[in-house]
Amino acid sequence: MNFYEKTINQSSIYKGTIIDLEVHDVELPDGKTSKRELVYHNGAVAVCALTPEQKVILVEQFRKPAEKPLLEIPAGKLEKGEARELAAKRELEEETGYIAEDLEVITEMYGSPGFSNEKITIYLAKDLKEGQMQLDDDEFLEVSYYSLSEIESMIRNHEFEDAKTIIALQHLLLNYNDYK
Amino acid sequence: MNFYEKTINQSSIYKGTIIDLEVHDVELPDGKTSKRELVYHNGAVAVCALTPEQKVILVEQFRKPAEKPLLEIPAGKLEKGEARELAAKRELEEETGYIAEDLEVITEMYGSPGFSNEKITIYLAKDLKEGQMQLDDDEFLEVSYYSLSEIESMIRNHEFEDAKTIIALQHLLLNYNDYK
Repeated sequence: MNFYEKTINQSSIYKGTIIDLEVHDVELPDGKTSKRELVYHNGAVAVCALTPEQKVILVEQFRKPAEKPLLEIPAGKLEKGEARELAAKRELEEETGYIAEDLEVITEMYGSPGFSNEKITIYLAKDLKEGQMQLDDDEFLEVSYYSLSEIESMIRNHEFEDAKTIIALQHLLLNYNDYK
Repeated sequence: MNFYEKTINQSSIYKGTIIDLEVHDVELPDGKTSKRELVYHNGAVAVCALTPEQKVILVEQFRKPAEKPLLEIPAGKLEKGEARELAAKRELEEETGYIAEDLEVITEMYGSPGFSNEKITIYLAKDLKEGQMQLDDDEFLEVSYYSLSEIESMIRNHEFEDAKTIIALQHLLLNYNDYK
């Protein structure tokens, strides 16, 4: 079945630093029209990294939209034109001080596909080396380390609320059971 | 550590049907200021439903932000003041024609916590009864059914791109292995 929604009119509401907002009139499959509010974002990368001791590296940072700190895997938005894998390595080293030579894609995900095109590529990083932590000027975060057994009970107790983080950690539990 | 970002100035850019956009000036932990672009959303619910034959119910619908159809668990946004569990039951019946008497919370998640407060509660529904499918006027979707073995290989092949869906399906794989 073809569900395509063709844009027949669009207006730009806001062009910002992280996001742009547009409103489109779209033609629906039955020929009627509807409005779509669309938040455009450059995309992001996230890294689920395991230390040589098989600990998962998480970072806690204040998230203004949620008005509270969230415990997440290291992540960051893509600069315009930046390659995803390079961005992932850069973010991991900047936020945690670890260098990953090889990354493996866990999955790509849309967090809010109803209104935003933000796509996050989630990587798995093993065989880490020591690098240099270096936070952005407006970035404040705290790094912590968890065993897979701890992660398992934290998932069970609903202690994570960030989608990319839950996906990455479930992936570890499904595929690296022997690391517990 | 206290990372709180206090809003010291805010402007409303857009008030829409699904989302509102505000830009806040916030005070950082070091006393400097920064801008935050914030997309406010009323929240949503999603239901991972298992038929009496232990098949997972998925719906495919066109997602304008991604410019393609995505295969997802049934979901919908909350109406103002609506109870999450009631909304979940309503969306499930409207989109799939199934009634769930009991729902169990899998988790709550922020899909895009860097810029949006959209929080999705993901439920698990078993023991379904037959009800009445009834789509919204601007809703076009296709319902399909998958065994847990099929889901497992689809996850492995990165066939899902919607965050809430990946979380719900990985939860099934972690906890309902005997349904395969």
